[in-house]
Amino acid sequence: MHEERVRIRWRDLDAYGHVNNAVFLTYLEICRDAWVQEVLGPVTDTWNFVLARVAIDYRRELRLDDDEVLVTCRPVRVGRSSIATREEIRTRDGALAAEAESVIVPRDPVTGRSRPLTEEERAAVEAELASDR
Amino acid sequence: MHEERVRIRWRDLDAYGHVNNAVFLTYLEICRDAWVQEVLGPVTDTWNFVLARVAIDYRRELRLDDDEVLVTCRPVRVGRSSIATREEIRTRDGALAAEAESVIVPRDPVTGRSRPLTEEERAAVEAELASDR
Amino acid sequence: MHEERVRIRWRDLDAYGHVNNAVFLTYLEICRDAWVQEVLGPVTDTWNFVLARVAIDYRRELRLDDDEVLVTCRPVRVGRSSIATREEIRTRDGALAAEAESVIVPRDPVTGRSRPLTEEERAAVEAELASDR
Amino acid sequence: MHEERVRIRWRDLDAYGHVNNAVFLTYLEICRDAWVQEVLGPVTDTWNFVLARVAIDYRRELRLDDDEVLVTCRPVRVGRSSIATREEIRTRDGALAAEAESVIVPRDPVTGRSRPLTEEERAAVEAELASDR
Repeated sequence: MHEERVRIRWRDLDAYGHVNNAVFLTYLEICRDAWVQEVLGPVTDTWNFVLARVAIDYRRELRLDDDEVLVTCRPVRVGRSSIATREEIRTRDGALAAEAESVIVPRDPVTGRSRPLTEEERAAVEAELASDR
Repeated sequence: MHEERVRIRWRDLDAYGHVNNAVFLTYLEICRDAWVQEVLGPVTDTWNFVLARVAIDYRRELRLDDDEVLVTCRPVRVGRSSIATREEIRTRDGALAAEAESVIVPRDPVTGRSRPLTEEERAAVEAELASDR
Repeated sequence: MHEERVRIRWRDLDAYGHVNNAVFLTYLEICRDAWVQEVLGPVTDTWNFVLARVAIDYRRELRLDDDEVLVTCRPVRVGRSSIATREEIRTRDGALAAEAESVIVPRDPVTGRSRPLTEEERAAVEAELASDR
Repeated sequence: MHEERVRIRWRDLDAYGHVNNAVFLTYLEICRDAWVQEVLGPVTDTWNFVLARVAIDYRRELRLDDDEVLVTCRPVRVGRSSIATREEIRTRDGALAAEAESVIVPRDPVTGRSRPLTEEERAAVEAELASDR
């Protein structure tokens, strides 16, 4: 599991006075990218991974005076050519602001098409899955 | 069904040279908000609806030379206290860039908690559901 | 002179309910990039121009119901290694929302350092300056 | 003087692979807002201050591996109805990425028009100006 602390910016708010729904994906991205770098960085070129899906449930609005959020990302499944992660955004006092499941896929930089995970990539994620239990 | 044409901006791109994943939610929001205004605006205060969930599948990357996208939003389900919509983002030549299902819920402005749909709200969405078939 | 019509997005607003000050620079960028492409595109690689300075005066706030803005960009000065442009953002009814002066400079892609304008680049801007009078 | 540490986000980059010019204004805003809150918060409603002008010189591009920036804001002038501040964005190793001068003005919340600074507001900024020397 990887955890990132993200400061809420004034520009993250919309006219409702709360963090805009799209910005939650930016918070998730910060943590997921760091997780990918940490787990897959040693074995592959992480630039070749792209986001295929995000399903996010908004549980609680975020305001400027929440000040910062804690975002977590951990693997939940590894397929032939995709990795599913579970992500959470929490306020400093632990309240759940959003939970998400995302899917990333490796892409062949030459053809631009998705490709199967290499054995090294799969092994790196499976080691994480095992250590997380 | 509502359709919006959205111009891609340079600022929508990230360092991959394609539209950032979070910006897709901004494109969906533009169309969904317009749909909500069109269908629910005549019967309720649309400011009292908030986004509870988005599940988006990214199908094709968008680049600056795609120039603009066509976004559609239509209802797929109406519950006791929620409305589910199906949304698509397509390039000008009709290629599917992303498809999503979102859920919006009405919120009591005084208590800040979700509330059931009123009969007028449900009827307005059901009329749309019927006309869409 | 180049003119661009830019639709205001919900995400452009901040918690004041008006277009955030940083987003004005995005509006300017859309028009300036198009102007650069139009004037310099035929004679040089426009990717080698970077923004060196912007001075913007905010004159009137923009709200979602302004719906769109008209942005203009025209050259005002050409130096040995820089081009100054004057830019305006106006509402549909012609009210001035902001005026700016920007400076762009060519950059050598190999050294990453600024370089003098070529004769073709200078001539292209001077032709624009002349035609604008 | 106020100083803020701002983490660079992936979403701050554009297709050049560097922090987009408009995002620099977001970095400035984070620090200026904190400065306004610190200096004017005790004597007035800071929500009534709006940004009238920013002049920013870009000195060095920022990349994701710069990781974070240090932003400073301090007053340079106080007028009858405006406050000018000088702002800098530096990398962690002290390199100047941008310098700016901004002007903020108080606005009457009822009429929506700018108003003179109150004596308390002016005194608060002048105390800062004196202590900064």
